[in-house]
Amino acid sequence: MQTPWDHRYAQRTQRMASSAIRELLKYTEKPDIISFAGGLPAPEVFPVEEFRVACDRVLRENGAQALQYSTTEGLRPLREMIARHSSRYGIEITSENVLITASSQQALDLLGKILINPGDNILVESPSYLGALQAWNLYGAQYITVPMDEDGMVTDALEEALRAGPKFIYVLPNFQNPTGVTLSLERRHALIELADRYGVPIIEDDPYGQLRYEGQHLPSVVVLDSQYRDDCTHSYRGNVIYLSTFSKLLAPGLRLGWVIAPEEVIRKLVVAKQAADLHTSTFTQMIAYEVSRGGFIDRHVPLIREVYGHRRDVMLAAMDRYFPPEVDWTQPKGGLFLWGILPKYLDAADVLEAAVEKKVAFVPGEPFHPTGGGKNTMRINFSNATPEKIEEGIFRLGKVLAEKVGKKVAV
Amino acid sequence: MQTPWDHRYAQRTQRMASSAIRELLKYTEKPDIISFAGGLPAPEVFPVEEFRVACDRVLRENGAQALQYSTTEGLRPLREMIARHSSRYGIEITSENVLITASSQQALDLLGKILINPGDNILVESPSYLGALQAWNLYGAQYITVPMDEDGMVTDALEEALRAGPKFIYVLPNFQNPTGVTLSLERRHALIELADRYGVPIIEDDPYGQLRYEGQHLPSVVVLDSQYRDDCTHSYRGNVIYLSTFSKLLAPGLRLGWVIAPEEVIRKLVVAKQAADLHTSTFTQMIAYEVSRGGFIDRHVPLIREVYGHRRDVMLAAMDRYFPPEVDWTQPKGGLFLWGILPKYLDAADVLEAAVEKKVAFVPGEPFHPTGGGKNTMRINFSNATPEKIEEGIFRLGKVLAEKVGKKVAV
Repeated sequence: MQTPWDHRYAQRTQRMASSAIRELLKYTEKPDIISFAGGLPAPEVFPVEEFRVACDRVLRENGAQALQYSTTEGLRPLREMIARHSSRYGIEITSENVLITASSQQALDLLGKILINPGDNILVESPSYLGALQAWNLYGAQYITVPMDEDGMVTDALEEALRAGPKFIYVLPNFQNPTGVTLSLERRHALIELADRYGVPIIEDDPYGQLRYEGQHLPSVVVLDSQYRDDCTHSYRGNVIYLSTFSKLLAPGLRLGWVIAPEEVIRKLVVAKQAADLHTSTFTQMIAYEVSRGGFIDRHVPLIREVYGHRRDVMLAAMDRYFPPEVDWTQPKGGLFLWGILPKYLDAADVLEAAVEKKVAFVPGEPFHPTGGGKNTMRINFSNATPEKIEEGIFRLGKVLAEKVGKKVAV
Repeated sequence: MQTPWDHRYAQRTQRMASSAIRELLKYTEKPDIISFAGGLPAPEVFPVEEFRVACDRVLRENGAQALQYSTTEGLRPLREMIARHSSRYGIEITSENVLITASSQQALDLLGKILINPGDNILVESPSYLGALQAWNLYGAQYITVPMDEDGMVTDALEEALRAGPKFIYVLPNFQNPTGVTLSLERRHALIELADRYGVPIIEDDPYGQLRYEGQHLPSVVVLDSQYRDDCTHSYRGNVIYLSTFSKLLAPGLRLGWVIAPEEVIRKLVVAKQAADLHTSTFTQMIAYEVSRGGFIDRHVPLIREVYGHRRDVMLAAMDRYFPPEVDWTQPKGGLFLWGILPKYLDAADVLEAAVEKKVAFVPGEPFHPTGGGKNTMRINFSNATPEKIEEGIFRLGKVLAEKVGKKVAV
């Protein structure tokens, strides 16, 4: 249908992601497909009963408040809980440093809105989180990339990138989406020191920090920054804006995340958020607070770790068995994803097409690369499918990969 | 605290609304103030018990689905319900024409994102809805204004405004926020005819359409447009994008609204929404669907009409008694607001300052005027305060106004 809107779209829509993969991934929603494509938590670990009890209590005791408009900043008790929790991890902040958002995705969008002028350079890992790139593309961002290896962003390449004058650095230090790798402690220090030397601030995106299945917890960048040149006070210096979310700790269907930032940045984000959606659902905030306030998350996280850690182990073992030797992959210590690296002559988009025919799916890695490349990479989720489906799905994917690799060898 | 973010804000933040009134209105949250400032529904009409039952049922029967990620477009049964409901009112659409948003405010923001280039002219009523202006200012919108009178947008002034080449027309035909006035049927026809002649599409914002307390329901602009030059088919022509919300029918704390638009526009909005927040809370969508699906809203709306209609009557009667004859106001037939017009020599911001001292508040009308003016106007909400508080609040406001008018007379 032709409409008068057809020629009225804003120029920025030309930077909206192409929908080729989107269309292909629609097939993955069919029930007979084993999908490693999404970033979905395991529904088996959702604390449904705790939510039911919390809803009942909130609506019985504070129903009118839960259903009414509330402030753009977010529910004060929830913000205070986040501030207390952050202090426990080593940064001294107050609820004035906290904004509740409709998930981290909204935090990324609002940060783009208040910070990015068309043409601004943002320093990102390559590959980086697709949702951030999609949000910031619409504000006209350009990217300076730093490569990744098994210890995260290669900080040896960081100084040159910083000299190109980025507006800020965007980093996912823990079990990065898409690669699953973790920034080493040494590199965290190097990142902070270089950022400080060039006066460039950092956005740290940390949705999976608590979901570690082996090894020692590493302090987040915002915590290390607060100790930089001063190990005693732990006061928040404001150089690092920190994002996290309830999506992986409680449930993504709530759409609840938070930003920790200097008060002045929070004030700007609040005005931007007011124009974006007035505020996040009062009801979901009160439910999340009610579920969390007695320390439930601390008791719940071990279960998530156990379930996801087991699924990761099952997937890694199945890959060892079924993937051809030409294919490589990362060994994530936590999070939801691992990263497959194919021989250079294979295109993961072709592999996906063949895989979907065999009823298994993943996400090709190319779109995660803000300045191109990565056609031979793939993001594979291990949190959502059951161990039995992981075993079967990796078996199918292994057959597809063996066939693709074999064809090349035959030629 | 100085931070490296201080000089890194995007240029668009310079168009963020000044916070002078915002700061003043913070005082209105104190419990001893009678506030007519917000646009809050009456908490007394919230169907708390229906929500409690719905939450219980959704979490018992579909808990894992309710807490999981879902599609950006929104919950299909909810979109189908909205499509069916729209057909009942006279436009034939499918769920593919419907996008669920985090309230109408998000719909306005996403429409700005996909449509507005910096410098684009948008044709709006003056005064118009502040939330739309705040959202669109951040995309660099300019405004062409058409004045209002007691029958809504003055369509006699519309043709000249259309010749200035606006990208689209933004109109709130029913019980407009802020003025409370309704676009007459004759002018709705004139609007559609002129928009058609100049090929300029329309965004119709209709949060209060069902909240009419007297007179006959008028067909919405989108419905009249579907009948234009063809009274038989009622097929959706796509010229009018229609926005509405569950905020005034069920509860604003859910943050649920919807957009009706041509499929291609919906597709663009979906990509923009994916970058903005991935999707709206699965849980709140399922709750809203569960509460609504048996026809609850039809049974509930008469209660809202009764309560709000009575409060409007109480307010109008109190104004008759307590306001000085120099002050004028609109007589809304529905909605949540009425509009006060002071003598030209009074500034409503000064009046607000004096009013807050007397523990009563409203919103000065100036910020609703996209191209300036309206310093002598005020928006007054009648839905939130109880009849007793309305009586007392208007009494206090009347005293403040009499004093302000008297001072001028004394000078």
